[in-house]
Amino acid sequence: MEKSIAEIAGLLQAELEGDPNLTISGLAEIDTAQSGHIVFAENEAWFARAEASEASAIIIPRDIKRGKKTVLKIDKPKMAFGMLMHIYAPPLNFSKGIHPTAVIGTNAVLDDNVSIQPYAVVDNGAVIGKGTVIGAHCYVGQNAVIGEKCILHAHSVVYARMRLGNKVILHSGVIVGPDGFGYVEHNKKRVKVPQIGIVVIGDDVEIGSNTTIDRATLGETRIGAGTKIDNLVQIAHNDLIGENCIFCAQSGVSGSTKVGNNVIVAGQAGLGDHVTIEDNVVVGAQAGIPSNKLIRGNQMVFGAPARNADDMKKQMGAQLRLPKLVEKVKQLEEQIQRMETLLEKIPSDR
Amino acid sequence: MEKSIAEIAGLLQAELEGDPNLTISGLAEIDTAQSGHIVFAENEAWFARAEASEASAIIIPRDIKRGKKTVLKIDKPKMAFGMLMHIYAPPLNFSKGIHPTAVIGTNAVLDDNVSIQPYAVVDNGAVIGKGTVIGAHCYVGQNAVIGEKCILHAHSVVYARMRLGNKVILHSGVIVGPDGFGYVEHNKKRVKVPQIGIVVIGDDVEIGSNTTIDRATLGETRIGAGTKIDNLVQIAHNDLIGENCIFCAQSGVSGSTKVGNNVIVAGQAGLGDHVTIEDNVVVGAQAGIPSNKLIRGNQMVFGAPARNADDMKKQMGAQLRLPKLVEKVKQLEEQIQRMETLLEKIPSDR
Amino acid sequence: MEKSIAEIAGLLQAELEGDPNLTISGLAEIDTAQSGHIVFAENEAWFARAEASEASAIIIPRDIKRGKKTVLKIDKPKMAFGMLMHIYAPPLNFSKGIHPTAVIGTNAVLDDNVSIQPYAVVDNGAVIGKGTVIGAHCYVGQNAVIGEKCILHAHSVVYARMRLGNKVILHSGVIVGPDGFGYVEHNKKRVKVPQIGIVVIGDDVEIGSNTTIDRATLGETRIGAGTKIDNLVQIAHNDLIGENCIFCAQSGVSGSTKVGNNVIVAGQAGLGDHVTIEDNVVVGAQAGIPSNKLIRGNQMVFGAPARNADDMKKQMGAQLRLPKLVEKVKQLEEQIQRMETLLEKIPSDR
Repeated sequence: MEKSIAEIAGLLQAELEGDPNLTISGLAEIDTAQSGHIVFAENEAWFARAEASEASAIIIPRDIKRGKKTVLKIDKPKMAFGMLMHIYAPPLNFSKGIHPTAVIGTNAVLDDNVSIQPYAVVDNGAVIGKGTVIGAHCYVGQNAVIGEKCILHAHSVVYARMRLGNKVILHSGVIVGPDGFGYVEHNKKRVKVPQIGIVVIGDDVEIGSNTTIDRATLGETRIGAGTKIDNLVQIAHNDLIGENCIFCAQSGVSGSTKVGNNVIVAGQAGLGDHVTIEDNVVVGAQAGIPSNKLIRGNQMVFGAPARNADDMKKQMGAQLRLPKLVEKVKQLEEQIQRMETLLEKIPSDR
Repeated sequence: MEKSIAEIAGLLQAELEGDPNLTISGLAEIDTAQSGHIVFAENEAWFARAEASEASAIIIPRDIKRGKKTVLKIDKPKMAFGMLMHIYAPPLNFSKGIHPTAVIGTNAVLDDNVSIQPYAVVDNGAVIGKGTVIGAHCYVGQNAVIGEKCILHAHSVVYARMRLGNKVILHSGVIVGPDGFGYVEHNKKRVKVPQIGIVVIGDDVEIGSNTTIDRATLGETRIGAGTKIDNLVQIAHNDLIGENCIFCAQSGVSGSTKVGNNVIVAGQAGLGDHVTIEDNVVVGAQAGIPSNKLIRGNQMVFGAPARNADDMKKQMGAQLRLPKLVEKVKQLEEQIQRMETLLEKIPSDR
Repeated sequence: MEKSIAEIAGLLQAELEGDPNLTISGLAEIDTAQSGHIVFAENEAWFARAEASEASAIIIPRDIKRGKKTVLKIDKPKMAFGMLMHIYAPPLNFSKGIHPTAVIGTNAVLDDNVSIQPYAVVDNGAVIGKGTVIGAHCYVGQNAVIGEKCILHAHSVVYARMRLGNKVILHSGVIVGPDGFGYVEHNKKRVKVPQIGIVVIGDDVEIGSNTTIDRATLGETRIGAGTKIDNLVQIAHNDLIGENCIFCAQSGVSGSTKVGNNVIVAGQAGLGDHVTIEDNVVVGAQAGIPSNKLIRGNQMVFGAPARNADDMKKQMGAQLRLPKLVEKVKQLEEQIQRMETLLEKIPSDR
């Protein structure tokens, strides 16, 4: 899809320096760019690579001086490039209407303008909002409520009575609402505690492939508006997750844990049960937060058990020097021995 | 669904103190309870919160003194509340019979009283026992055997020849019987070792969403009766898992490992291959058990590599004090320096 | 399926010692072998167990002396046994042709000799190569390309435009091509960066159940030929994975990371973003490789942060002895105290 660089400058409200008639055919990464492509650079080092590439134009920050190639200057090159990607991205092509093979249950309420793909099953009493796409083979359970402009990719599953807001994206394999993991021990057996609560997902949440969000034992498991969850993540029963959070792949949260707003949980981190994480916390990759812990806001924690990053760095610095510390202590022990021997030779009754 | 408190007391065999005519409309958590709800409390602190809430009645232990609200006294309030949840839980509503869109293969044996949901596929020769529910889009492979009163939630998959006992619950996305991960190295390539064994799952096992249980290379991968497995767990080929075990979310077991009875494996823990875990062990969250290790029964282990909890606590206590130990050793080194200097001033030939 | 031992010796090109007329009915593990079974042993200890078992014949290395049972001598017993398993394995029985319930989109190109199972959906413009099996309920997205002799087990999902080579195996629940996890922060919200790249999977790759391989932001996420990936693994956007690698269950790789050839990543290990792993590296179980790190080839690393195995062993050795080091330092401190006291008694003006 070709556009002139002047048109792109207008779309992005960027300052053009160079040839306004340049035709841009597509977007590229610097390493694989060809003539006709536009790339972006966030600093001088990237810009040097971009100048050396085959790209025809570069989006750069305002404080970088233009070289040979045509540039578009803007405050946030990465964000601008992201906006361009929205424009150049091949559209998802799902026809409106209900595929003849879709099974729609009794009393299901489907808004006009929905797209129900082959073999999707929308069970009795479920509600699907305007403009929503239900992908091939999806299962929407009895009395579940899906908001407007949602996209459920092929093979996502929403159990009975669960509630999704507007503009929610579920990638393939996401399971919303399976039973929370609850048992009591009785006569050496595990007796199931019925899980009769639900999941409530806020507007503008995106959930990655094969992630699982458990229903509450009683009440609600909640994902706040704007939160983004990666693949293979576990959210347990009765978790209350705030807004605009980030959960990276393979992280996991145990039950009844409360996570504030704008919290970032990095890959493979684990949060215990009944934990409270306040706003603006960053939890490092593979960190472990023990049950019942309170993590105060506005800090970064890592390690297992996780502690404030500054304390943890001292800790790890000391750990790295541990073999040398062992040797040092051995040396000191020998020095003390020698001094004791010397001291013994000195009569103490002077 | 309303019941009188007297009727509930009878059902639970609890001792009622208060108004026997009270009508209970539902169950609640203390924080969200309204008039007409019943809640439970396990200790004085909870009881105080319950008394302050809007709930109409409270299930409590026998040794707590009643306040203003009607109470039901019983030995195990949490278990009693769980029993009530069974009674109040909205029933799963799957009609008996075979949905017209289900595909049933040749020589499949389906008992009367099964429920086969839309787009389920039961392949050639599979056997489905009495009262079992096969959810929408499930795939039951050729010659697989599913016992009685099982529930396979939408989108679970059972490969050919696998065997499930009675009252087994598979949540959505569970995969029973994919190939174990076996390769031999030959001329720098990975040559696949055919995986021709099966999985055998005992009675009363529940498996959480997106968990994977690999078939054996030869022979059987086994899950013992009464064991409960959470979401996103990996059980590898030829694992032998005992009875009444608990595997929390995102834990994983490598191949040919033997886990005894009543073992609890906490979230994100990892067990190596050819490990033996004896009965009644608790493996802590994020623990790592190295290959070939033997963990004796009746202990708790944690850490990576995992060690007995008491040893590990000493270890971690020492690690936390490590930065101070580094400083202490520095101080001692300086003290020794000063003392050496003093000693040198003392003639040694006295 | 019965074969004479002489025929098996011929197939394996093994040296037979014993009764050439022996009939073999199947393969077994040593612990469960019965009369008529053949087993294998790699060393004297196994051989002793095999001799004591009910098996009728044993495959052994050339340097082990025969006992009572008939043996087949060969250089690599495990590999030979694997070859036999190929022969004795029950065949996967998927009829050729397109099941009447499969939905094939417009302009999809299906080679002769494909097998499309019940309820598979092959969307518009997708290409399926010769001899490939698309399992029940699979979803192959618009314009995706699947090579020859691939097996997509039931419930695997390939998003639009993704590309699989020849002889690729996807186990149930694999998701190829969901959006990479990319957002920029803008006014305290997470703005999605469109993911418009693809995934390219090389020949002879096998991917385990419920593993997720994200599409690139721009360009390609690549899995090299011959690589084998276990269950519940995460491969992120723009990862470039080499050939003949091994990724064990629940390991994960963050974005834009480059992994060389013949790299082994053990269970639950985590690789950060923009990491480079050179050829022939082994990454230990639960290891953590920090973002931007370079791991040189031909070494084993473990721990978090991961370091060379030899350094790590010293580190861990020192850590295990830490409680004793704390006590030792306390002792030295006391010794120094005593010596200082003695020194003070000695006049320094001599």
